[in-house]
Amino acid sequence: MAFKIGLLGFGTVGSGTVQILQNPTLRHPLLHDITLHRVGVRSLDKPRPIELAPDLLTTDLEAIVTDPEVDVVVELIGGLEPARSLILKAIAHKKHVVTANKAVIARYSDEIFDAANAAGVYVMIEAAVAGGIPVIQPLRQALSVNRLHRVTGIINGTTNYILTRMQREGADFTDVLADAQALGYAEADPTADVDGLDAADKIAILAALAFGGRVNLTEVYCEGIRNVTASDIAYAEDLGFVIKLLATAQRDIPDDAAPGTTDRLQVRVHPTLLPKDHPLASVNDVFNAVLIEGDPIGQVMFFGPGAGMGPTASAVVSDIQTIAAALKSAAAAPTSLNPLMACIHEHYCTITPMEDLVTRFYARLLSKDQPGVIGKIGTCFGNHDVSLESIVQIDSHQDLAEIVVVTHNVREGNFRQALDEMRHFEAVSEIPSTLRVL
Amino acid sequence: MAFKIGLLGFGTVGSGTVQILQNPTLRHPLLHDITLHRVGVRSLDKPRPIELAPDLLTTDLEAIVTDPEVDVVVELIGGLEPARSLILKAIAHKKHVVTANKAVIARYSDEIFDAANAAGVYVMIEAAVAGGIPVIQPLRQALSVNRLHRVTGIINGTTNYILTRMQREGADFTDVLADAQALGYAEADPTADVDGLDAADKIAILAALAFGGRVNLTEVYCEGIRNVTASDIAYAEDLGFVIKLLATAQRDIPDDAAPGTTDRLQVRVHPTLLPKDHPLASVNDVFNAVLIEGDPIGQVMFFGPGAGMGPTASAVVSDIQTIAAALKSAAAAPTSLNPLMACIHEHYCTITPMEDLVTRFYARLLSKDQPGVIGKIGTCFGNHDVSLESIVQIDSHQDLAEIVVVTHNVREGNFRQALDEMRHFEAVSEIPSTLRVL
Ligand SMILES: NC(=O)c1ccc[n+]([C@@H]2O[C@H](COP(=O)([O-])OP(=O)(O)OC[C@H]3O[C@@H](n4cnc5c(N)ncnc54)[C@H](OP(=O)(O)O)[C@@H]3O)[C@@H](O)[C@H]2O)c1
Ligand SMILES: NC(=O)c1ccc[n+]([C@@H]2O[C@H](COP(=O)([O-])OP(=O)(O)OC[C@H]3O[C@@H](n4cnc5c(N)ncnc54)[C@H](OP(=O)(O)O)[C@@H]3O)[C@@H](O)[C@H]2O)c1
Repeated sequence: MAFKIGLLGFGTVGSGTVQILQNPTLRHPLLHDITLHRVGVRSLDKPRPIELAPDLLTTDLEAIVTDPEVDVVVELIGGLEPARSLILKAIAHKKHVVTANKAVIARYSDEIFDAANAAGVYVMIEAAVAGGIPVIQPLRQALSVNRLHRVTGIINGTTNYILTRMQREGADFTDVLADAQALGYAEADPTADVDGLDAADKIAILAALAFGGRVNLTEVYCEGIRNVTASDIAYAEDLGFVIKLLATAQRDIPDDAAPGTTDRLQVRVHPTLLPKDHPLASVNDVFNAVLIEGDPIGQVMFFGPGAGMGPTASAVVSDIQTIAAALKSAAAAPTSLNPLMACIHEHYCTITPMEDLVTRFYARLLSKDQPGVIGKIGTCFGNHDVSLESIVQIDSHQDLAEIVVVTHNVREGNFRQALDEMRHFEAVSEIPSTLRVL
Repeated sequence: MAFKIGLLGFGTVGSGTVQILQNPTLRHPLLHDITLHRVGVRSLDKPRPIELAPDLLTTDLEAIVTDPEVDVVVELIGGLEPARSLILKAIAHKKHVVTANKAVIARYSDEIFDAANAAGVYVMIEAAVAGGIPVIQPLRQALSVNRLHRVTGIINGTTNYILTRMQREGADFTDVLADAQALGYAEADPTADVDGLDAADKIAILAALAFGGRVNLTEVYCEGIRNVTASDIAYAEDLGFVIKLLATAQRDIPDDAAPGTTDRLQVRVHPTLLPKDHPLASVNDVFNAVLIEGDPIGQVMFFGPGAGMGPTASAVVSDIQTIAAALKSAAAAPTSLNPLMACIHEHYCTITPMEDLVTRFYARLLSKDQPGVIGKIGTCFGNHDVSLESIVQIDSHQDLAEIVVVTHNVREGNFRQALDEMRHFEAVSEIPSTLRVL
């Protein structure tokens, strides 16, 4: 059974998506059933970093979303229009849809999901929030058995990068922003990021999934990081806090409120002082993380790359694959299993013997405090191709010295042979610890 | 459409599971379709913390796994036998199975998954690894479009608790173990945890899922934490490392190896020196985390509670729900959507106005350096029910002083009113920053 993809957009995320689909080896075998049918772009002449059969490319995106052969439309053009209309037309033509377009989903989820339910098709949005981090599926599925209380995220990489650098360098917002723009971490027009609008789109989407209702984007409170100063960051640090742009969605009434109590949410984006030991406090640079709290799970956090060609494409293709799995099992229902839920491997893996492991090592040796011991130990390691990162004689109590060694990456077998030889040295009385180092 | 659960075991995780199933309000609506049909235990007389209709309880577990009415058997008795035989018998009777039993899955996945594939039933194991953290489903589904390179986990809470306390207190293994046993964080017989056997079971399971082949448990290298000493932890700290019990599964050949190259894995559990800035280095106490690396995702990490009644039950019920969703869509195929993938909410959420938000605040004020300013500011906050956690006059340059205030939890509206009043104080020249504090 083959599933045909109509791809809209062949830019950053589109290219990453094509790269995965064209190279299925060593990925889930289901990807072999997925083929690229058409790719829609604005310009046919633009040089492309990835080769495509030329008859795949077209500028007629309408033709893709109405093509009877296409099973799944993947919208990666971005912006509100024509993205929204193309998604709706694809749905009307009974195509399943995968999109990374948080702007469209945050504004038009209403009409899009109503249309999808009416047409009996899936609209999948894993890539729209937190890039490569799987967070939409866990929220909808694994975590939805909980009574969710709060979703808190660092879900805009640009602002997290700027705040991290302000924190590390004591620098001011405008200077770091200019530098981030020069380095490509911030756009020429940084408004959507630094004013919190991108994070607001995303938290509106997460709130809707976590709390089972739609969220009107205009009601999301949104405050960016333009007014965060170097001195506030310094004072916050003295008080035990770091400043992060947090997006929060929270149920405002207790789980045991009287039945019929109106359900109320807080949905808000603003810079926040976070205690340094908070799980989100150490999420730095362009990384994203989402913390989900509920009953009885307590807290779980998902951390990873919130954007970028590869990670975002991973999320896009996982949605395509999830749809393919559902369609494949539905086609053979009621006798067939969903291939993503069934066990597919039947061979045994070959396991590497530990002596072939290549890793760094830490070792602690007790030696008689004699001149030349360190030299002897170093030479012995060298004879066995074990090169050292550091070797330190820590202190000596009575006539014994403690020697701590850290190696570079070495073959475990070689390291063990060197130690076996050293155990016979007169000057080495014991090797109480050997530990691997990552 | 109702799904009937036959539950084997009503201990820690079994009770948590019943608690979720009996209280579906505010959870995913699909839980309303799932009913508890029988509950199997060893003793009928034991007092139970949770009430059950008495005719649900039985000691005849065979009768549950062969009961024609049962759709899903949930095995939560633990141990190898009779758990293994009951799972196999359930499969033979065409029941889907959910289990938290890593010991059985790590040893008998072979016969269990072969039997399940032959019978056309699902065997779901989310709770077997990392408790409440969704990691099995993301590995199998969202992340399986990647070429996975490595899975690294802190997946045994007891040893992580012991190592964390050794690190913090400079204490020795035996002392902390004894204390952990007294506090209930370690079992009377701690072997399975401290010798790494429990982590070995779990990494064997993760390796099989990540790399699409079975893993022979006897080939998993396993070294526990009994020999980690306080002095090694101290030296490691000086060198910039923390010591953690890591479980690692890694592909040993590059993605671009010649076709036909034998696939080889490393699968190992041992204490490891981790650089302090590694994402797993700050995972402390009983928490678990799993770091997954691959192409093109880069790194993603999942963090949360690795055990405990509620979190583990969350994973168990999510597996039950996933099966129910698949069966429900299969029953109406090809026209119906999987309810966990379709959008189910159609109402709009009520959003709380920001002035009703209750949070801590940080504020920075510039004031004329006059006597009594702090008193005036404090009084003004007090008049508006804003109680202060700290108020500090930081320094004065020229005739201006900088005053930094952190409040307790207050209503945002009250805080804003107080600030508005202060803006008219002759002594307050500016309020350049107000930020919320978590
Ligand atoms: N980049 C990321 O890291 C990232 C992360 C998460 C989510 N996203 C989302 O992913 C989506 C795509 O982002 P991107 O960074 O891949 O964008 P991009 O690099 O600008 O690529 C956009 C692609 O769409 C095509 N396109 C745009 N407007 C079109 C139109 N009117 N008709 C036909 N083709 C059109 C462009 O064609 P030409 O090539 O001919 O110009 C281009 O191939 C956006 O919704 C974005 O928010 C991106
Ligand atoms: N506890 C955790 O945090 C955790 C976390 C992850 C995974 N797990 C896994 O979850 C499973 C259950 O753990 P648990 O902590 O819930 O165990 P538990 O508290 O010891 O409960 C075991 C239950 O099984 C019943 N049982 C045991 N042997 C039986 C037999 N031969 N016949 C009938 N009933 C029997 C017991 O009946 P009685 O009540 O009558 O004695 C009890 O209700 C294990 O596989 C464990 O590894 C546990």
